[in-house]
Amino acid sequence: MGLHEDMVMMGDKAVAASRELARLSARKKNTILLAMADEVESSREIIKQANALDVESARASGMQPPLVDRLTLTDSRINSMAKGLRDVAGLKDPVGSVISRWIRPNGLEIVKSRIPIGVIAIIYEARPNVTADAAGLCFKAANAVILRGGKESIHSNHAIVDVLQAGGRKKGLPENAFQLVNTTDHEAVRELVQLEGKVDLVIPRGGESLIRAVVEQARVPVIKHYKGVCHTYVDAAANLDMALKICENAKCQRPGVCNSMETVLVHESVAFSFLPKLYARLGQELKVELRGDEAARAIIPQMKPATEGDWTAEYLDLILAVKVVPSLNAAIDHINRYGSNHSDAIISDSEESQKEFTREVGSAAVYINASTRFTDGAEFGMGAEIGISTDKLHARGPMGLEELTTYKYIIGGDGQIRE
Amino acid sequence: MGLHEDMVMMGDKAVAASRELARLSARKKNTILLAMADEVESSREIIKQANALDVESARASGMQPPLVDRLTLTDSRINSMAKGLRDVAGLKDPVGSVISRWIRPNGLEIVKSRIPIGVIAIIYEARPNVTADAAGLCFKAANAVILRGGKESIHSNHAIVDVLQAGGRKKGLPENAFQLVNTTDHEAVRELVQLEGKVDLVIPRGGESLIRAVVEQARVPVIKHYKGVCHTYVDAAANLDMALKICENAKCQRPGVCNSMETVLVHESVAFSFLPKLYARLGQELKVELRGDEAARAIIPQMKPATEGDWTAEYLDLILAVKVVPSLNAAIDHINRYGSNHSDAIISDSEESQKEFTREVGSAAVYINASTRFTDGAEFGMGAEIGISTDKLHARGPMGLEELTTYKYIIGGDGQIRE
Repeated sequence: MGLHEDMVMMGDKAVAASRELARLSARKKNTILLAMADEVESSREIIKQANALDVESARASGMQPPLVDRLTLTDSRINSMAKGLRDVAGLKDPVGSVISRWIRPNGLEIVKSRIPIGVIAIIYEARPNVTADAAGLCFKAANAVILRGGKESIHSNHAIVDVLQAGGRKKGLPENAFQLVNTTDHEAVRELVQLEGKVDLVIPRGGESLIRAVVEQARVPVIKHYKGVCHTYVDAAANLDMALKICENAKCQRPGVCNSMETVLVHESVAFSFLPKLYARLGQELKVELRGDEAARAIIPQMKPATEGDWTAEYLDLILAVKVVPSLNAAIDHINRYGSNHSDAIISDSEESQKEFTREVGSAAVYINASTRFTDGAEFGMGAEIGISTDKLHARGPMGLEELTTYKYIIGGDGQIRE
Repeated sequence: MGLHEDMVMMGDKAVAASRELARLSARKKNTILLAMADEVESSREIIKQANALDVESARASGMQPPLVDRLTLTDSRINSMAKGLRDVAGLKDPVGSVISRWIRPNGLEIVKSRIPIGVIAIIYEARPNVTADAAGLCFKAANAVILRGGKESIHSNHAIVDVLQAGGRKKGLPENAFQLVNTTDHEAVRELVQLEGKVDLVIPRGGESLIRAVVEQARVPVIKHYKGVCHTYVDAAANLDMALKICENAKCQRPGVCNSMETVLVHESVAFSFLPKLYARLGQELKVELRGDEAARAIIPQMKPATEGDWTAEYLDLILAVKVVPSLNAAIDHINRYGSNHSDAIISDSEESQKEFTREVGSAAVYINASTRFTDGAEFGMGAEIGISTDKLHARGPMGLEELTTYKYIIGGDGQIRE
């Protein structure tokens, strides 16, 4: 049988599983999640053995040490996987909740009710813990999931899926609730994202090139973010001490993640007082490489010059682009032009500036006097997240359980016909 | 300049317009809508003259009379266009409303707030009144719109867009709030639906082949329905008089629309009493062509035999497929297998059957004891609709003003940083 037929069959199995999943009660799903967590812990040696094979080939192929580290499953990471599944069991089940309900003059009752999306494909790169996280979240929202991990973690992913299935099966997990794509052939991704009518949603997680390839090929909806080029704008009316603390947090607390800051925009009226503080704390004490535009370098000549490419760069590193802007509007224009619709902040005590900034900046998350680092499912109080969306439709920002559901209208009557 | 550059420029203009639109107050938008309505009425001769050119070439090219009729703009249709714009002015503005709001333990206030989607492309076929309807709705939700109508109505569409712009401009309509694609070149559609980062949403309206072509080519999100293969299931516990009235309404009240019924499924325990009634009323009195499966024809041999193709057919005509099913589950399986996720009904007095049917049928609108013909923005109380979605994401069922919006998170703090 060819790859196309394999993938179609996988899609059909997932559709069948999704119907069984939709019938499970919240209690049943939670029991299954806890059994999966137990199985992860009791099968840790199996997972570690499989993972060792991946780590070995990664080293042999010359993978960079930080990437090898991300690939490696330690006891503590396996514990985190199990804890993640238990945490998901503790979250409120969104399925079946009523979004709204109204009665029409003819007596029809219209109920907008939350339901699972159906079949979700997750396409991701090296980190094998995504396998358990994604499976758990999709399952709790009663979606069937097709997992396609990176080839670097194929053994680990297989072991994790086997363990999750074995644990879940003890408590009635439907067959094919999660399936792992069995081949590392790139064509499998193309087939998967073109399974219209079987796969309802694709969530790619990984580098920009992976995500772009998925979007190019997809015929089914994709929710994603390409990257996070997050800004902090220090307004004329900013509390500069607060601005400095927030910039330090947004840039340095964890520079390698998508909600960290990449560019600071400083209003010209406070540039002379703020930039020296920024340079002293971030540039000198914390060893952040500052790259400034001409106006910024006129104040702090020690900064490297920024080029056009710096305004769109997602450094994910201790590098920060610095620009002096003549107005709030110039800051907004810069963000809407160069930003990634992820997370952007204004530091200002002016309610007018706050209002204008939050209205005009088009990003999924817009902050007033806070660090962009809060764009995260747990920080928003959603529990775990399946990813972050910078798209406009269905889900924006951190995507939790609710974002893994859709709705249907249930219309109740007693014989109504249309006149 | 080539087509690609033209479309990119159109996209850029729409993005610029969308930013201006997002700033308009509800009152300002309503004033503009009313001015557009006035202009449609006072410019009716200009619109009719342009429409006459389209009608003439349609006739010359041998277009079928019903299609020529759909293309023709009479005084009453022009009045309807104006009334439609006034009705939209009367609808509640969804932009800026708060979907939810909560405060985190660290004091951050998270506000999920409704915003315009941005730029919407509408791709449609012959009926020129869609031009005014779509422009009005998209505008009220503060979206810029790029219209691409059928080549058959190009003169009418140009005239309508000119009139809307002229009327709106008197009250401050932003430039390029609506633009009409200037060429009938099919490549323009491809370019349009690939304008990632400029066009946020494509809504195709028309025949299945148009919609499939758009989905094939699109790189930006598309919301659509391919067709409406709607079912009525007459349960073992149905009130058969009610069932007959609902079937008549669902099939005959307006057979040419997507929410009309195409297949009736009858539980075998009531088939002997129901099918003769159905045949007498629909088949004999109302001249509906009934196409039955073997079990149905065993009861009413006058029915034509149904073939496999009948179960997926969208007749849009006085034809009805009839199937006897052994159980509620068989009805559900049939609908989920052959249906189009549009609108399906159960006629039953059993709460258990109602509950199972509404839970298991995956369609956007699931009815209990009512006609599927109610799947419509106005009937749902949404006011006008931009279309109907059978997709799973963002919007399902009738799409009104709210469905033309998305949201952002506005997070307010007083210096919060992440630990």
